[in-house]
Parts: sequence; C-alpha cells; structure tokens
Amino acid sequence: MICGLARSTKEDIDRAWESLKYAKTSMIHMFIATSDIHMKYKLNMSREQVVERARSMVTYARSLGFKHVRFGLEDATRSDKEFVYRIIGEVIKAGATCICVADTVGCNLPNEFAQLIVDIKANTLGIKNVILAGHCHNDLGLATANTLAGICAGVRQVDVTINGIGERAGNASLEEIVMAIKCRGEEVLGGVYTGINTKHIFTTSNMVEEYSGVKLQPHKAIVGANAFTHESGIHQDGILKNKGTYEFISAEDVGFIRASEHGIKLGKLSGRHALNIKMLELGYNFEEKQLEDLFWRFKSMAGRKKNITDDDLRTLILNETIQPQIA
Amino acid sequence: MICGLARSTKEDIDRAWESLKYAKTSMIHMFIATSDIHMKYKLNMSREQVVERARSMVTYARSLGFKHVRFGLEDATRSDKEFVYRIIGEVIKAGATCICVADTVGCNLPNEFAQLIVDIKANTLGIKNVILAGHCHNDLGLATANTLAGICAGVRQVDVTINGIGERAGNASLEEIVMAIKCRGEEVLGGVYTGINTKHIFTTSNMVEEYSGVKLQPHKAIVGANAFTHESGIHQDGILKNKGTYEFISAEDVGFIRASEHGIKLGKLSGRHALNIKMLELGYNFEEKQLEDLFWRFKSMAGRKKNITDDDLRTLILNETIQPQIA
Repeated sequence: MICGLARSTKEDIDRAWESLKYAKTSMIHMFIATSDIHMKYKLNMSREQVVERARSMVTYARSLGFKHVRFGLEDATRSDKEFVYRIIGEVIKAGATCICVADTVGCNLPNEFAQLIVDIKANTLGIKNVILAGHCHNDLGLATANTLAGICAGVRQVDVTINGIGERAGNASLEEIVMAIKCRGEEVLGGVYTGINTKHIFTTSNMVEEYSGVKLQPHKAIVGANAFTHESGIHQDGILKNKGTYEFISAEDVGFIRASEHGIKLGKLSGRHALNIKMLELGYNFEEKQLEDLFWRFKSMAGRKKNITDDDLRTLILNETIQPQIA
Repeated sequence: MICGLARSTKEDIDRAWESLKYAKTSMIHMFIATSDIHMKYKLNMSREQVVERARSMVTYARSLGFKHVRFGLEDATRSDKEFVYRIIGEVIKAGATCICVADTVGCNLPNEFAQLIVDIKANTLGIKNVILAGHCHNDLGLATANTLAGICAGVRQVDVTINGIGERAGNASLEEIVMAIKCRGEEVLGGVYTGINTKHIFTTSNMVEEYSGVKLQPHKAIVGANAFTHESGIHQDGILKNKGTYEFISAEDVGFIRASEHGIKLGKLSGRHALNIKMLELGYNFEEKQLEDLFWRFKSMAGRKKNITDDDLRTLILNETIQPQIA
C-alpha cells in the first residue's frame, strides 16, 4: 500500500500512517523541491531549511513505522547538482529507501537525464542502499525517452501513467515504456523487464480514456486508434505481403482490436493493391484494366472525402460502366 | 521546389522533372527499402538488384538536371549495417546530395539511432560531401527523441510533421523538435538552430487540426489544449507565485492562447490558493475561515464533476450561509 503526499506536514504523515498502519507493507511517498527557483518563489526557504525539512519528514515517517520511505526531489533537473547529492545523502541517512528524481517541467533531453542519474550514483553517500526512481514530464514530448534513458543509467522504479495523462503535456506513458522494455529490453536496455501482461494494455487504455474523459489522438503511440492502421499505398502494399514490413509491434501483443484484418484504411494515399484486396472483401473480382479505371475514380473521390466507407465504394462500382464479375 | 516519389520508376522521375524543370532550385526525393524483410517480401529483389536500382534512379535524376537528389533508405534501422554503408556509398557516387536515414517502423531507441548515424559517418565513402537527414516514426513514442539524437550525431535535415501526424503513430512533431532546439539547442545540442518564428506554432497547429480532421489529445506536448494548463494544487500555487516554477517554455513563445491568465483550471486536485484567486477574479473576497469552508465544498463538487465552470462556483457561493464581501 502506498500513500503519496503533496504537502507532507506532520499531520499529513500522521493521517497516512493511520490509513496504512495495518497494511502488510507500507510505503509513503513525499517530496520537496530542490531547484533555486522553487525554493525562492514557491517555498520561500533557504537550502539549509529545505535539507532540514526533508530530513525531518523522512525521520518522522520512519519513526511511525513506515517500512518504505520514497523521497522525491521535485524539479531535480533544474537543481544545483552539488545540492542534489547533499540532500539525497541526508535523506538516505535519515532512512529513505527510494529516491525519486523528477524532471518536473519536462526540460531535459535523454542524455542529460541519464547523466544526472549517473552523477547522482557517483557522488552521493549511501546511494547503493536505495532504489533510484524517475519521474518525467512530457513538455518537449520526451517523457518516454527520458524515462528509458534513466533506466539505462540505473533507475529501477518509474513513474508512468496510462495514456500518458498528467499535468500540462502529461507524464511518461505506461504503454510506451512497457512495450519499449518488452521489445527492446533484452537488446538495448541491458536485460530489464516488467511483469506486465501486455495483452491488457488496449482495454485498460480504453477504460482510462472513458473514465477520465481525456480523449486520445488517433496517432497516440501503442493505443491510438491509428496506431496499427495503414493508409499510404506503399505501406498497405507491404503489409498485405508481410505484416512485419511495417509493424514491429504486433497489434495482438497489446490486445488491440482492428477494424479490418490488415489494419488497412482506404484514403487518398492508398494504392491499387489495397483497393483490390478491399474489393475482393466486398465480393468483387475486377480485371486489371477495370481496376485501373476504378482506381483513378477512387483517388478522385478520396481527394474530396476523408473517410471512405464500404457504401462509398459500392456506389463507385454502380457508376462503373464495365461491370465486374461477382467473385 | 521539392518532389517526393514513392515508386520512383523512370516515368515518375520524368514527370517530376517536367513539373520542376523551370524551378530555380530543383530537388527530388526518392527512396528504396534496404532491410532484408522489405527486400524479400515487399520488393522481391536481391541486395544486388536493390543497389543497382538505387544507383540507376539517382543517375537518371541527375542526368535530367535535378540539382539536389535526396535519397532515402527505408527501414534503414532494421538493415544490415555493412549493406547500408555500401548502398549509401554507391548512391553518393551516382550523384546523391542528401542521404535520408529512416526508422520506418519506429523501433529504435535514441542511442541506437545516434549510433547508426555515427557508424554511417565513419564507414561510408564520400559521406562528407552530402547532407545527412533523419526520418523517424513514433511507434514507441520516441520519434522526437530519436530525431534529436540524430541531430546530436550529425543529422542536419529532419523530416517532421505539424502535430506529429503520419502513418500509424505518426512522425516526429515539428513543434517539439523546434522548441527543443530553441530552448536547449545552445546548451545540449551543440548550438544548432532553426529559422522558424515559433510564435506561429499554435495557430499553424490549429489550422492543421481543422483541415486534416486529426484531433489532438489535450496533453499533446507544446500544442495540446492542456499544454500550458495547471490543475493540481501544488502546481497552481507555484504558478501563481512565479510562472517559471512550472513552465520552462512560455505559452507566449509558441503563440498559445490561454483561457485564463495563469492557465489555471480548477479541478479535484486544486488547492486553496487557486480557488481564492479564482474567487477574486469572479469578484468575491472571502475571509480565511469562509474560504476554508468553501474549499471543502468545492472539493466535494470537483470529485463529482470534471469541468467546473464559473457558474458552478457562483452556485456554490449562493448556497453558502456566510456571505462574502463583494471585492
């Protein structure tokens, strides 16, 4: 059981303990900002006061009986590194069991975030006795990449959200991190793995979308409506010959339900191959010359209409002077 | 003027030249797949045949008079590296002026893509005489990170799309790449820059959203509706004290139009500070005790209703037994 606190006053920690004291394993997550801009404008505290507050929060939580104390450094990526090493060392001494490094404003590039983790590991007293965690925001679209870079550098607990929802541009997406680890963990990420059954990803994502009211864009990685859809001619042609040509993750692996078997969506970029397959599905078998004629009229329609339905295609055939054989 | 070709037959190249021959500068973009899976299943060609086709496409385009010939390696990230060096060397010899390396299925992690660029630079004949380009897909949510890693490694032309739209999970987002370069180009990316006026980003994004019909999720980085919105109490409190605490990119820099001055959206995670500011905006000045009472009733309402409107807040006040002073 985990309890996370934003304010982390003595009363808050007391309340958290009241609700968790009978749990088999109890963990509390607390944090404090360590960047100069946060300490000056938000906390109105000096570095010394921040260290003292952090130390006393951890000490108090441990004294109540919390087995695991996870302590986070808010805005760590904009904090003075020497101060970061020092405050982490102090909270570890006070009994913290996990240290969370946060890129709160999402300003880091992956190599920077990895370097910060490496530097913390190299310069902080007692760091070998705790778990390192990463918490990345997505303001530059880099939350997933930064989290993975953190994992490469030694992070072993990551803060992720389903569909990547969160403040502003959100947090690292669970589904992206899990699939990157599943597909590339062995080869590129030093053998890390998760125990997650990926076949439930799509259903879970849908559930979160419905309950949160936060609608995903069609090109959201892994779980967007178009994530396994192929629209351009060259891609459709490849997919029809071998799925592996344009899909390196299989839709089945994440429990994704496709509208059509090959994930093909006819549009203005579609080619002859996809049109022919679609026609066969609808029961029409065209000769090459007929298909060529139909193809150009289809292109003309697709230029004017974004979503081409089966009925649109049937109308196109009815207006055709040469009738196809019924397949 | 640029003309991009999917099939790149002699007739296609002829047509491209017909339309561009009077242009001041003419560029053609052509490509061929270089991975074993694409060559075997999609192209049904041997490595030798692919090299020969690539060479003849480039030679023919140059013979017509194209000043710039950009040649792309589709699925380069799943191709045999020795073969990649060889085919690039051959097309450079044939007259290519730009080489585009594509992560067609979006399977790379940033360090891998950077390594591929570094290896190509180190092992390919004539590579110093051409521009290197990167084309990254977003299947793992890493298109932006991979493109930036490519830039770090020497890529100087990048394929991006507004809002990141594209096949499946899309391509690298123009707005994310441009803002990463603008905000971190000097410090982390070796001094690269773009000539783009970022103040037009938000309007352009809106236009593309409207014309393409591809709706963005609220947490889309840089241009999503929530990209500069603050909902949780601790974030709102910081923003009200100093915007820099939780915004490292300013909304004004990308021409983002906020619904309210501080980008504050009241919700179930909001705190007293934000509620008070909002009340002052609406013309109500509460004493501390009154605000505390109102705050808990607001929390209760926010737990049941996701979007809290100004009218909701006024209703809450009307039901209040203690009346506030009108500010």
